[in-house]
Amino acid sequence: MSLTSLLLSLIIIYVAARAGGELAQRMNQPAVLGELLGGLVVGLSGFNLIDPKADVLHLMAELGVLILLFEVGLETKLHDLTRVGAQALAVAAIGILAPISLANGLALLWGLPVMPALLIGVALSSTSIAVSARVLSDQGMLASAIGSIILGAAIIDDVVGVGLLGIMSSVVDRGVVDPAQVTQIVVVSVGFLAVTLLLGHHLEKPLLRLVKVMRGRGILVVTFLTFALALAYLASILGSATLLGAFAAGLLLEETEERRDLETQIKPVADIFTPIFFVSVGASIDLRQLNPFDPTARSLLLFAVLLIAVATITKLIAGWGAWRSKGDRLVVGVGMLARGEIGLIFAGVGATAGLLSPGLYAVLVAAIAATTMMAPPWLRWLLGRRGSTVDSG
Amino acid sequence: MSLTSLLLSLIIIYVAARAGGELAQRMNQPAVLGELLGGLVVGLSGFNLIDPKADVLHLMAELGVLILLFEVGLETKLHDLTRVGAQALAVAAIGILAPISLANGLALLWGLPVMPALLIGVALSSTSIAVSARVLSDQGMLASAIGSIILGAAIIDDVVGVGLLGIMSSVVDRGVVDPAQVTQIVVVSVGFLAVTLLLGHHLEKPLLRLVKVMRGRGILVVTFLTFALALAYLASILGSATLLGAFAAGLLLEETEERRDLETQIKPVADIFTPIFFVSVGASIDLRQLNPFDPTARSLLLFAVLLIAVATITKLIAGWGAWRSKGDRLVVGVGMLARGEIGLIFAGVGATAGLLSPGLYAVLVAAIAATTMMAPPWLRWLLGRRGSTVDSG
Repeated sequence: MSLTSLLLSLIIIYVAARAGGELAQRMNQPAVLGELLGGLVVGLSGFNLIDPKADVLHLMAELGVLILLFEVGLETKLHDLTRVGAQALAVAAIGILAPISLANGLALLWGLPVMPALLIGVALSSTSIAVSARVLSDQGMLASAIGSIILGAAIIDDVVGVGLLGIMSSVVDRGVVDPAQVTQIVVVSVGFLAVTLLLGHHLEKPLLRLVKVMRGRGILVVTFLTFALALAYLASILGSATLLGAFAAGLLLEETEERRDLETQIKPVADIFTPIFFVSVGASIDLRQLNPFDPTARSLLLFAVLLIAVATITKLIAGWGAWRSKGDRLVVGVGMLARGEIGLIFAGVGATAGLLSPGLYAVLVAAIAATTMMAPPWLRWLLGRRGSTVDSG
Repeated sequence: MSLTSLLLSLIIIYVAARAGGELAQRMNQPAVLGELLGGLVVGLSGFNLIDPKADVLHLMAELGVLILLFEVGLETKLHDLTRVGAQALAVAAIGILAPISLANGLALLWGLPVMPALLIGVALSSTSIAVSARVLSDQGMLASAIGSIILGAAIIDDVVGVGLLGIMSSVVDRGVVDPAQVTQIVVVSVGFLAVTLLLGHHLEKPLLRLVKVMRGRGILVVTFLTFALALAYLASILGSATLLGAFAAGLLLEETEERRDLETQIKPVADIFTPIFFVSVGASIDLRQLNPFDPTARSLLLFAVLLIAVATITKLIAGWGAWRSKGDRLVVGVGMLARGEIGLIFAGVGATAGLLSPGLYAVLVAAIAATTMMAPPWLRWLLGRRGSTVDSG
């Protein structure tokens, strides 16, 4: 690829991401859905202006995923995990196990092989923390009892989701279906995460001291991004996944002044890299696979509808984990509905590895997008009704 | 290239850049020289750990150049150009013309063809504003009469240098030696710069309004980086060079609150991309070409020494442009000595296009590095001596 054609692709990607993101946010939807939509318009289903499979774009998108997960790690406070209540834990557990088993079951019933079915189940297990947090904060409910159950469960979900993603993408990368090897990857991934989180602080402190004595500009962001890339590389060569390493690097940094500076500086870098990924995800979708006027596509469309139903119901069931909050179980369930970034990365991993056919890829992204779109208005409506009930009671 | 090997290359690049940059700054040298040195160590002349010719690294390095020039444009205040004095203008004019004619002449005498000779001459014409500004500021001389002559001349040099770079790299890219086509490129490049700077404000204001009404994160940096990439793309397809467009985009933004926010946000992005370029420049140098124990290399080494002398003397001559500051002409000349980023980009353009042999490439980078290294201690010494003369007088 020449520099000129790379420039043109990047311009198209950023314009699509901004236009779609703006539209989504005007409709009170998360920006990532808009970037997906922008990708649909400029990609395979639309004007076919970019080629997300081009080497440079693909690698920059992958770097975008790593930087995004590093940032998610930075923003996840591990301390909050230890303070999470039993109800949040129950909600998270059900919310992870129900989609994995039921969506996986549906996919197997539909006749899919084990690996794609498992990937679809796992992809639908991870709640997006950003979407729920935004709605709760808009309604002033972030600090309420329900708010902390939803957020607590979503944080657990995030960490477990990235863990599962790491395991899944190693398995997929190596094209493994042998149970012994899968077990090995699981052990390596869990072990990697455990060891880095336990021993990582011994690395983090010297790095922070190093940053303080070094001169010149850009030291903080370059040093810690290099740290994240190094952990990503390490995770990969040990037999786990790059994204697990990047996420662990973010988790490791404790609540210091440098962490806040780093968050400020890593944001513009993430803003430049991540749209390349999300627009690429949208651009790789071939909507013709779901054309209702095409008889062969109709069965796939039915699968999509069923998958959306399962993806919705399994998270509503998770609300029952909030056993002490009888009247609010539905609110909690809806609060767990939105999927978002992690699910899309799963879909991307599956498609890149050729595990998901173009049709299944479209179905999975549609299910992720549909539940994510449903969540904000539904949650807002429930919280509003609940507020007025409290007022009138 | 796989993601894992890209990660490894990036880790090596950042570690080399930081280690070299730190060493350089401890020795009161500009960080970019250190990044060059880091590149030498990990590249062709050292451990050969990275391949700067790999597609992804090469394109990311080129993006780094564009982002760097966008940032240089942002930091160049066009207003200052209009207030620059006659002496600064004279210093800049001599400081550009003398190296172009003399270094070019030396290269022609040495038997080089016209194009490489011209490229070497032009590459040595551009003073680095950052190096002189740093030394002057350290000595509290930034606002003095000499300080403003040096800085004024360096700003003009910067703008003219990027212009010449744009013209030169278009000429080189197209492999043109035909005077008619060169004239066409010059006309297009000057025209492009003039038209964007004259009409660009009509684009900038709506963009700023757009940024204000848009929601979500990363809008400012994504919008204006896209603007810079779009101008770069436009410049390229019109027949000029990408870097001229990126530079013009930076120049266009007026002194607004958004410009300062943008500078803050673009810095980490530049910090991530530009080391890829400078380490690549260092990594592409084959020092064995200058091995004094190799008889065939000895003649090249002699050329290097002569070129460094010419590069030094021509900038000292420029000091004579400060006709009203009789005793300070040497100070002004030494203040113009440092080359830096723009010169290195020239060298990179020449090497990529195959215009400079590995040996000539090493010679040119050595000449740029040598004058840049000389400048800070020499200027500091002169300013110190001058200070004590004033004290004792």
